[in-house]
Formats: sequence, structure tokens, C-alpha cells
Amino acid sequence: MAKVTKINHIAIAVNNIEESLAFWQGALGLSLSHIEDVPSQKASVAFIPTGDSEVELVRPTDETTGVAKFLKDRGPGMHHLCLEVDDIDGMLEQLKEKGVRLINETAQVLPGRKMAFIHPKSANGVLVELYQITE
Amino acid sequence: MAKVTKINHIAIAVNNIEESLAFWQGALGLSLSHIEDVPSQKASVAFIPTGDSEVELVRPTDETTGVAKFLKDRGPGMHHLCLEVDDIDGMLEQLKEKGVRLINETAQVLPGRKMAFIHPKSANGVLVELYQITE
Repeated sequence: MAKVTKINHIAIAVNNIEESLAFWQGALGLSLSHIEDVPSQKASVAFIPTGDSEVELVRPTDETTGVAKFLKDRGPGMHHLCLEVDDIDGMLEQLKEKGVRLINETAQVLPGRKMAFIHPKSANGVLVELYQITE
Repeated sequence: MAKVTKINHIAIAVNNIEESLAFWQGALGLSLSHIEDVPSQKASVAFIPTGDSEVELVRPTDETTGVAKFLKDRGPGMHHLCLEVDDIDGMLEQLKEKGVRLINETAQVLPGRKMAFIHPKSANGVLVELYQITE
């Protein structure tokens, strides 16, 4: 049976990464790992290691993305919870068998990871991302 | 300087803990540690260890709480992010010096932990809870 191993990250939708870092880095004292353009998400992302997980600040670089819509509708806030799994293909099968509604029926394969989203309707209103680290 | 050491938990506001566990425990396969009435929060909470952190399902037991209002206004979803710190009193001083708006100016002392909330206005719309484990 596929397993969840940890919280990989919490993604926070923000309008301005530099201003947001004033809180997470400047006030809380967390360390910024790096800021990266993530073309697959059409976003710029600040990666902030927090214990064995990360806080990610996500600023959309395109107005058509889910994060851009979230920001427009609700303003900044927690956008999704990413859980790391040991076997994402097995986990997606397991979820389908249980009747869980998926946004991605099969995992997207990206450099270093495979990922898929579970629909919030099946997860208490939480947009849950699944990651399997592959390298 | 006080430090954030990890994500202690993500709190998810739910209407019904048993139904919610069908997803987190039944489908994802996470293990339920226990369900507890938490009088200080006027809530029933299911504790679900997830790697070095926890997912907590929070069902209000009183209609006047922030979680009850959140559920009524927005439905189930991620309610707050709890960061564990090594020195909560030092952290609150540090945050005040940086002009961060706090919900609790001083930590509440509870059995086994000290806690305080940061106002979402200062944290990109995220309700951030701080915990210091004291035993």
C-alpha cells in the first residue's frame, strides 16, 4: 500500500514575494533557500525550508492560473497542502478505488518528481498536492 | 534570536470528524493518533501524525469560535498553520519589534505548551499559530 511520508510543503499565494519575505524571513527569521521561476506552474516560487518541510510563497506569472484566480477572488493565503508519498501511481490507484475525486488521474512527470492534485471536494475543501521525489 | 524549528501542524476546519477521516485515514492511509476534546479551543480535534508534523481536523463544539465562523463563512478548509518555535516569548518580542500584528501579545500557557496567534494581516492572509513545547 502506498504511503504518505510527510508534509512536503505548504503553498501560500502571494502578490509580491519580496514584501512577503519581510514576514517569513525578516520577522520570523526563516531562511530563504532560493527563488525560482517554475514554468510548469506559471509562477515564481520562494522556497523556505521549515524543519523537514517547506513553506513556499507562490506568485503567479500568468493571470490564467489557479493561483492567480485564488488571489483575485480571496487575496493572499494558504493555497494548497503538498503531501509526499512513496509511490504516487499506487496512491492514485488507491484513491480512485476509494472514490476520491482527482484533478490529475495520472501523475505528471517533472524533473526530480512526479505530482498530482486531489480535488478539494474530496479533501475537506483542501487542495491537496501529492509529490513523489524521484531523484 | 528565537527560531522556528518546524511545522507543528496544519489545522483543517471540518464539520464532521468521522466523515473527514474517511479521506485522511481511509483513503490516504494516514494513521489517527487520537481524537480529543480541546476545551481551550472549544473544539474536538483529530490528531493525524504526518512525518515530523501533524494534520489536525478541528470541529468546533461552540458556535462562537473563530473556527465555527470560518466554517459558516467559507466551508471546510485549511484554517491555520502552526509553527513550532524554541522560545515563544523571544519570538513575540522579535515580531513586535518588526511591527508584526499579533492576536496574542503574550503567550497563553497551557499544559505542555505555550501558544500565540499572529494576525493574518501580517502574514499574507495566513493565520499563523506559534507553539513552544514545554514538556
